[in-house]
Amino acid sequence: MNNFEYHMPTKVIFGKGTEEKVGAEVAASGCKKVLLHYGKDSIKRSGLYDRVVKSLNDAGVDFVELDGVMPNPRLSLVYTGIELCREEGVDFILAVGGGSVIDSAKAIGVGVPYDGDVWDFYTGNQFIDCLPIGVVLTIPAAGSETSPNSVITNEVGDFKRGIGGQVMRPKFAILNPELPMTLPPYHMSCGAVDIMAHVMERYFTKVKNVAFTDRLCEATLKTVIENIPKVLECHEDYDAWAEIMWAGSVAHNGLLGTGREDDWGTHMIEHEVSGIYDVAHGAGLAVIFPAWMTYVYKMDVERFAQYANRVWDVEYSDDLDSMALKGIEKTKEFFSSICMPISLTELGIPGDRIEEMGSKILRKGAFLPLTPEHAVEILKIAL
Amino acid sequence: MNNFEYHMPTKVIFGKGTEEKVGAEVAASGCKKVLLHYGKDSIKRSGLYDRVVKSLNDAGVDFVELDGVMPNPRLSLVYTGIELCREEGVDFILAVGGGSVIDSAKAIGVGVPYDGDVWDFYTGNQFIDCLPIGVVLTIPAAGSETSPNSVITNEVGDFKRGIGGQVMRPKFAILNPELPMTLPPYHMSCGAVDIMAHVMERYFTKVKNVAFTDRLCEATLKTVIENIPKVLECHEDYDAWAEIMWAGSVAHNGLLGTGREDDWGTHMIEHEVSGIYDVAHGAGLAVIFPAWMTYVYKMDVERFAQYANRVWDVEYSDDLDSMALKGIEKTKEFFSSICMPISLTELGIPGDRIEEMGSKILRKGAFLPLTPEHAVEILKIAL
Repeated sequence: MNNFEYHMPTKVIFGKGTEEKVGAEVAASGCKKVLLHYGKDSIKRSGLYDRVVKSLNDAGVDFVELDGVMPNPRLSLVYTGIELCREEGVDFILAVGGGSVIDSAKAIGVGVPYDGDVWDFYTGNQFIDCLPIGVVLTIPAAGSETSPNSVITNEVGDFKRGIGGQVMRPKFAILNPELPMTLPPYHMSCGAVDIMAHVMERYFTKVKNVAFTDRLCEATLKTVIENIPKVLECHEDYDAWAEIMWAGSVAHNGLLGTGREDDWGTHMIEHEVSGIYDVAHGAGLAVIFPAWMTYVYKMDVERFAQYANRVWDVEYSDDLDSMALKGIEKTKEFFSSICMPISLTELGIPGDRIEEMGSKILRKGAFLPLTPEHAVEILKIAL
Repeated sequence: MNNFEYHMPTKVIFGKGTEEKVGAEVAASGCKKVLLHYGKDSIKRSGLYDRVVKSLNDAGVDFVELDGVMPNPRLSLVYTGIELCREEGVDFILAVGGGSVIDSAKAIGVGVPYDGDVWDFYTGNQFIDCLPIGVVLTIPAAGSETSPNSVITNEVGDFKRGIGGQVMRPKFAILNPELPMTLPPYHMSCGAVDIMAHVMERYFTKVKNVAFTDRLCEATLKTVIENIPKVLECHEDYDAWAEIMWAGSVAHNGLLGTGREDDWGTHMIEHEVSGIYDVAHGAGLAVIFPAWMTYVYKMDVERFAQYANRVWDVEYSDDLDSMALKGIEKTKEFFSSICMPISLTELGIPGDRIEEMGSKILRKGAFLPLTPEHAVEILKIAL
C-alpha cells in the first residue's frame, strides 16, 4: 500500500426531501450573494427549481442565476459565469444538477479569484483558491458532488480536460434519491457506467497489497450492478436509487483510491472521443473500458481474475487468462443489458479520426502508461 | 435506507514515517500551546516519543505534557488535564497513543471550555465546544482517531460511559502501520475484535434496504479476518498492518452506519463488564458479541444468514436458522483462534455481579431495545 492523505470534508446530506435544507446550509456559510447555477428546464419541470428558490428565499439568501449548462460543460459558459460573479459580487456558487453543472460551477469557482484565463488551469497551471461551492445533486454519475475534480470542454479545438485540487471540494452536497427518478433511462445507464468506471479506474492498479480498498471497490461495483436494473425496471424505486446515489458518491470521493495509484487511462481516451463527438460520457466509457481491459489484462492477469471472480462470480480455475476474459465479457454483457453501446460503431463513430484522438492524449495512465499509439490500438479494439 | 448526514472532515495522513509530519500539521492549526497527551513508557521505549517531540520542536510548537493514560481511561486524569490546560493556556491537544489516549484527550477537550463538571456530558448533557485535537495513532482498534466519540470510566461507582459530537472529531489523524508492530499479541487481537465489533454494531440493524453499506461492512470484516492472523504470525508484516489500520479507522468514522440505525447494545453491556472488572475492551467484546448474537438472531434470521454467507462463507441453504448459528459459531471460532476469550469464565469473571451489571444499562440498543433483563440473559449466555 502506498502512503496517502485522505481528506474529504464535504458534508453529505442524504435522503428524501433534503433539498429543503439548502437555504439553511448556504446561509450557514455566511456568504453575501450566491450564483444559482443549473442546466436546462428539467429542474423547473420537476419542481426542484421552485423548492430550491423557496428554501433560499426562506433563509434570506440573495442570489443571481446562470442556467444553460450542457452535458460536457463548455468553457464559454464558464467565462460568462466568471464575469457574472465578478459583476454581482458573488461569493458562493450553488450547483443544482448533475456532474456537468457541478464541474462548471467549480471552473467558475477557480476562475473568479484568478486574473488570467481559467483555461490555464486545465492545461497545467495549479489553482490555489476557489469560491465555496454547494450542490443539490440530480444525477448520480460523475461523483463531482464530493470530488475535488472538474472536467470542462473547450469548444475551440474540441479539447476536454480535467483538473483537481482539494479547495474545489463542495462544502456540502445534498443527495435526494427521489431527484433522479425523472431521468431518461439512457442517462440512468450512462450514470451507472460512469460510477463503475470511477471504481475501475482505481481498481486496476499496479500497487500491491491493497486488499481493503479492493474489497471496498468490489462492494461498490456490486451495488451498482445489482441496483441499476431495478431503477430501469421501475424508475421510482427509491431504495434502489438510494443505493446507487450513495455508491456513486463514495465511488469518486477518493476513499476507494487510498493507498493505490489510480489509472484514468480510459477516461483520458474517452475525453478525446466525447471532446470531438459530444457523446454522453457514460456511453463513451462503456465502449472504451472493455477495450482498454482487453488491451491490458495480461499485464496483471491475477487482478483481472480476481475482478472476474468477486464482481462477476466467475469461478476460480487454473486458467486465469480465461477467467480474466470472462470477466471482461461479463462487463460488456452487463453494459449491453442496460442498453449501453459497447463499440464505437454502435455510438455512430467511424474510425477515421482515431489517429487524431490518439494524438491528443496528454496524461498517461498508471496501470498502463498510455502513449498515443496505445490509445489508437485501444480505440481500434473499440471500433 | 434512512435519511442521514455524513461529515467526516478529519484529515488522514497514512503510511510509513508519517509521524514526522506531526509538527507541521499542529503548527498549521495556528495554535499557541499544545498538550502532548500519552499513556505510559511504551512510546518512549519505541522511540516514537522522541520523533514526535523532535517534529514539534522543529516546527516551533510550544507544548506541555500529560502522561499516564491507562486502558479504560479515567475521569480523574481528565480532571488533571483540564486543570493543566487552563493553567498553561493550552489551545490544542495532541494525543499520541491508542483509543484510550484519544478518548481522554477528547474528554479534556470538551472539559476545558466548560464551567461545570465534564462528567455532566457523560451522563446526558450535550457539549457544544471542544479544543482542536490531533492524533498520532499507535493501536488500530478503537477508531477514535476519526470518530466523534469518547468513552471514559468514572472510578467513583465504576461507571464507563460514552459520548459523541461532531466537534470532537480530530482535525488530523496520523496513521503509520509500523507503530503497532511492537504491541503485545494479546492487544493486537483485542484491537481486531474492537474493529469487528464497530462494524457489527452497525451491520445488525433493523433498517431495510441498506445493501451498499452491508457490503462495505462485509468488506471491512473480511479485511480484518484475513489480516489479523498475518500480524500475529509475523508482527512486522507492514502490509497486513496497513490493511488493519485503515480498515479500523473506516470501521468507526461513521461511513459504515450511513442510512442505518446502529445497535451498540453489545458495547453497552461490555462497558458494564469492563467498568467493574477492568478487562480489555476487545476481550470483553469477544465474549459479549457472540452471546448477544445468540440471543437476538431469530429477530432477523435472514440478516444473520447473510452475515454467515458473506463474511464466513457459509453456503446458502433453506435452513437459515442453521446458517445463522454457523455464522455465530464461526465468529467464536475465529475469536478463539486469535487467542481471545469467548466466555466470562475464560475472562475470570464469575456470575455473581451479573444482576448489578445488567441494572446499570442506561441506553437501549436499536436492533434489540435493551432492558436490564435482556442484558442479564445475554451475560448468562456469555458465562
